Amino acid sequence: MERPAPAAWQVDETGSGAAIYELAQQLYPICRSITGNGVRDTLRLLARCIPLETHEVATGTQVFDWTVPREWNIRDAYIKDPNGRRVVDFRQSNLHVVGYSTPVRTTLSLEELKKHIFTLPNQPDLIPYRTSYYAEFWGFCMAHNHLLELADGEYEVMIDSSLTDGSLTYGEFLHRGETEDEVLLSAHVCHPSLANDNCSGLALLTHFAETLAHRQTRYSYRFLFAPGTIGSITWLARNESMVDRIKHGLVVSCVGDGGGPTYKKSRRGDAQIDRAMTHVLRHASPKGSILDFSPYGYDERQYCSPGFDLPVGLFQRSQFGMFPEYHTSADNLDFIRPEHLEASYQMLAAAIDIIENNCSHINVNPKCEPQLGRRGLYTAIGGDKDAPAKSMAMLWVLNLSDGKHKLLDIAEQAGIPFAMIREAAELLSENGLLSRANFRP
Amino acid sequence: MERPAPAAWQVDETGSGAAIYELAQQLYPICRSITGNGVRDTLRLLARCIPLETHEVATGTQVFDWTVPREWNIRDAYIKDPNGRRVVDFRQSNLHVVGYSTPVRTTLSLEELKKHIFTLPNQPDLIPYRTSYYAEFWGFCMAHNHLLELADGEYEVMIDSSLTDGSLTYGEFLHRGETEDEVLLSAHVCHPSLANDNCSGLALLTHFAETLAHRQTRYSYRFLFAPGTIGSITWLARNESMVDRIKHGLVVSCVGDGGGPTYKKSRRGDAQIDRAMTHVLRHASPKGSILDFSPYGYDERQYCSPGFDLPVGLFQRSQFGMFPEYHTSADNLDFIRPEHLEASYQMLAAAIDIIENNCSHINVNPKCEPQLGRRGLYTAIGGDKDAPAKSMAMLWVLNLSDGKHKLLDIAEQAGIPFAMIREAAELLSENGLLSRANFRP
Amino acid sequence: MERPAPAAWQVDETGSGAAIYELAQQLYPICRSITGNGVRDTLRLLARCIPLETHEVATGTQVFDWTVPREWNIRDAYIKDPNGRRVVDFRQSNLHVVGYSTPVRTTLSLEELKKHIFTLPNQPDLIPYRTSYYAEFWGFCMAHNHLLELADGEYEVMIDSSLTDGSLTYGEFLHRGETEDEVLLSAHVCHPSLANDNCSGLALLTHFAETLAHRQTRYSYRFLFAPGTIGSITWLARNESMVDRIKHGLVVSCVGDGGGPTYKKSRRGDAQIDRAMTHVLRHASPKGSILDFSPYGYDERQYCSPGFDLPVGLFQRSQFGMFPEYHTSADNLDFIRPEHLEASYQMLAAAIDIIENNCSHINVNPKCEPQLGRRGLYTAIGGDKDAPAKSMAMLWVLNLSDGKHKLLDIAEQAGIPFAMIREAAELLSENGLLSRANFRP
Repeated sequence: MERPAPAAWQVDETGSGAAIYELAQQLYPICRSITGNGVRDTLRLLARCIPLETHEVATGTQVFDWTVPREWNIRDAYIKDPNGRRVVDFRQSNLHVVGYSTPVRTTLSLEELKKHIFTLPNQPDLIPYRTSYYAEFWGFCMAHNHLLELADGEYEVMIDSSLTDGSLTYGEFLHRGETEDEVLLSAHVCHPSLANDNCSGLALLTHFAETLAHRQTRYSYRFLFAPGTIGSITWLARNESMVDRIKHGLVVSCVGDGGGPTYKKSRRGDAQIDRAMTHVLRHASPKGSILDFSPYGYDERQYCSPGFDLPVGLFQRSQFGMFPEYHTSADNLDFIRPEHLEASYQMLAAAIDIIENNCSHINVNPKCEPQLGRRGLYTAIGGDKDAPAKSMAMLWVLNLSDGKHKLLDIAEQAGIPFAMIREAAELLSENGLLSRANFRP
Repeated sequence: MERPAPAAWQVDETGSGAAIYELAQQLYPICRSITGNGVRDTLRLLARCIPLETHEVATGTQVFDWTVPREWNIRDAYIKDPNGRRVVDFRQSNLHVVGYSTPVRTTLSLEELKKHIFTLPNQPDLIPYRTSYYAEFWGFCMAHNHLLELADGEYEVMIDSSLTDGSLTYGEFLHRGETEDEVLLSAHVCHPSLANDNCSGLALLTHFAETLAHRQTRYSYRFLFAPGTIGSITWLARNESMVDRIKHGLVVSCVGDGGGPTYKKSRRGDAQIDRAMTHVLRHASPKGSILDFSPYGYDERQYCSPGFDLPVGLFQRSQFGMFPEYHTSADNLDFIRPEHLEASYQMLAAAIDIIENNCSHINVNPKCEPQLGRRGLYTAIGGDKDAPAKSMAMLWVLNLSDGKHKLLDIAEQAGIPFAMIREAAELLSENGLLSRANFRP
Repeated sequence: MERPAPAAWQVDETGSGAAIYELAQQLYPICRSITGNGVRDTLRLLARCIPLETHEVATGTQVFDWTVPREWNIRDAYIKDPNGRRVVDFRQSNLHVVGYSTPVRTTLSLEELKKHIFTLPNQPDLIPYRTSYYAEFWGFCMAHNHLLELADGEYEVMIDSSLTDGSLTYGEFLHRGETEDEVLLSAHVCHPSLANDNCSGLALLTHFAETLAHRQTRYSYRFLFAPGTIGSITWLARNESMVDRIKHGLVVSCVGDGGGPTYKKSRRGDAQIDRAMTHVLRHASPKGSILDFSPYGYDERQYCSPGFDLPVGLFQRSQFGMFPEYHTSADNLDFIRPEHLEASYQMLAAAIDIIENNCSHINVNPKCEPQLGRRGLYTAIGGDKDAPAKSMAMLWVLNLSDGKHKLLDIAEQAGIPFAMIREAAELLSENGLLSRANFRP
């Protein structure tokens, strides 16, 4: 059965950037970790936009080589100087407390205290982001210059946290398409007040899911919002039997800054998502970087472990670890901008356009060119500043529509954006010059 | 049966350039189009050199998706200014009339007239070349500066043309070789007074055919002189059952200027003609460009349509559309030079040398090197300034003559011109060190 | 049966360079040629270090297309000027006599004498190295400036050499490993006082053999010290039936200067030794060059002739013929340095480390990453400046240990030196995270 060609994704949706930024703003203040109420509060915010399903997995559950850890919650924390002033205050920035810090209430000398304090001597005005999930520890993070100002004396430290049996929380939303074949879109939900890493990814995917919910698609789309590493491992352990449905996927993080864009390929290296993202980035920006897979990064580490080897890549603007704001208090709401979120959204949409529409056609007049002028196909595009490119797109589609080339193959060989090639194929099909072939090769 | 190795094509034929240029000079003044007496006059000139067979295909004949158009002929045309002076005169340049202009005889204001006039504001002293084959229209082309000089007033325009049922004309010459496998060499015959595009190609191929007629060749060579697009489509439609014989081919146009050389690959991209031309251009000039196939250009568009997919590339000096003289009155007899035609001829000949002689041999002493010195093969080439290169050529031929490498493979791997590799193989064969293997892999 | 992983070859063996240099110093004064007592003296020196087996092959023996030549020996040679002074003296440099010069004792004018003298006008203070193995001739080599100083007059020339039936001599040492599969390491033994070409190669391979003799290895190692061209041809002719055992090989020459390093690939181009040496050079130096095979060079010409096509490459520092000292008296003991010999030794050892240890493993927890922290594998390497690289090495080994990737594949994909990847695999194996797969694919 012929399915009507889906509309292009690269529509002019003015305001996507603003809407994504607004959601990121709401997510930013929450103190998230790999478990706890911060994650639940975050998922509740996302659930206002999309019908998110929330899962709780009990502490102690075995997930492959790992065990779901105890649940961590924190209410308050501070360091008081000898005069009783809160010189470090969790209420001012949740980065001040090392993630998963055990509760503590004690008084100790500055020298002793320093064993529990992390700073960035090379970025002395920024607070670092640190965690200690699997080794029991308590600690604080603060600006190096701030630490230097502290006088000797006895300091009172207090961390009102709890580390107890509970559960790990993640959220999932499945948009059902025509088939059960799935596209996995995954963002980590475990970082506290870091705007780019990953309020940006959570907000962008949520907005994308919201738009998608109103469309008919070929694939089903699974959105996963889970804590990094242990969250994706948990999800994979609980969904092992259905991962074969995942035909394409992206991990999305750090998509709000003005760097990049960066795409890190899946372990397979030549998966369709790899080719689609490479194509999109090549046409989106001369600054784009395409990186080969490496086993260090975000949750693609788990999706691309050898026992799964899923076709899942990583989409970012600046590459993680390569921008100075990374994992510091400078990764704040000034660091991400609506226009960058908008551009990232368009790139994601363009890649999905390829995934959805990458089929092959058969030229029904394969011997010599058909006479396009007689059918008004040259004049159809006259006056259009893209007319020469659109004519070339038609000639390329006709020349390569031999059943061996899909539209992405044609776009790559022609050096023309996929959307223009797809539109040329639609125009030629409407004029009876192409017949649709199967999506599958 | 052993066939004697054909002599190298790259012989020093002083005067080829001059002879080709002289023929191009004779072709230049004729007003050609895709049909009509200009084409017939052109073919008659070529037939003085080679036994050309001329074909006439009636107007209205269906050729794939196209129909052979009415025949166009023109005798005279002019624009007279209010004072009765011929300010635009077909007799001075046949570019002045838009190709396939319908007959007209009227008087109209300058403003009305301008709707029928084409100029090049950015090249204000040149007359453009324009046609309107499939939309009924009449028009003139002139220098932009010339147009600016025209005063307001009533202008008399006259085009004494006819557009009537008749026929499309093309010429063909088949040089029979030892086999029925064919090399197709094709040049378009439809442009009026444009020296490079394509008096140069017509003259060069005719001269090449003339030389070839006196030689024994492995392949048969088919020379086709037909109008662009509709001519090659017509030929393919009438010869559909025999195109499988075509093993290699070249479209030849714009081979008289000093740019390039340029080779555009066949749709296959790795056909033997693609490798041969790439090899020839690499050794001929550091300025050479090898372009991937694209579905825009000359008649390779038809030969390489997906239903035929013939191994036919395009050989040019400057690439069409990329030199400022292209499709203007500056593409005249000063723009092409005998020395460039000579060089183009040598490149074509070098490619045919490869096509004719690309066989593999078997080293009869494959274990360790044979002792060349004992056979005088080192001293045989002493005193020769190419001696080190010739020694290397012998070592390469010996090392790779294992039945898996043809001479072009060896030339490519060695980075040595094919002719020198072929000569080394001949010398080694004469000394009993190689036995000839099959031409086919 | 599990074999314990061999220790790394890249151990810190301070003094290897000094020991190799000392042996090269001893070899340097000997007047070697393709036959004769110089070769025997050389092999006797090597036999002090390793249990070398010496072979004598009689003059006239047919070896493939060649014949073992007469044996050449020389005792003294000089040119005396009109005053009876030895102006050219073999005792000062054995380069003064053209190799294989026939005996002569005569007096002749300077002009006549010059027909027998070779100089280097562009390097006027250096004595060239020349031979005439297969054409009977006598001659001298001297510095061009020295020649210019000679006054007219009668000169007495004397070469006390002999060219008689005798034998060709080569030496061989086989270190037996666990299997009969062999690694061939070959150095030419035929050049007189040229330190880099090839006292360096002879000394380096001898020292390597000495070290190897004390180790248990997977492969057997065959060391061959034979005259260039005729020696390797003779060896191949006498060992034709066993060459299939040779799985990897290197010709080693000119490894004592500070240039390069240079590796010329085997004819196969993608043999394991080609990949191993490419990997080693890439990590050893930014100045490294990897050259494709060509049929000109050292004994790889014979090993890689099409009838054998053995996986044998050429390892050098500066490429032969490309350094100004090549084949002149400037290739002396000042031109080679212990530190360069040491570095060359380490590169050879690193390549052998790859050849010996390039196996694949199976990740026993292939679904998601195993929890390395729980096993102390992150802290195991804490404080180590290479810790981040070692962690990455572990992640790469885990990710690619799917039975399809060997350690060299992993090292190449990771861009991490093989030894670090091998060590990571050993650490993971010790922790039960990997099981060893077969060496063979």
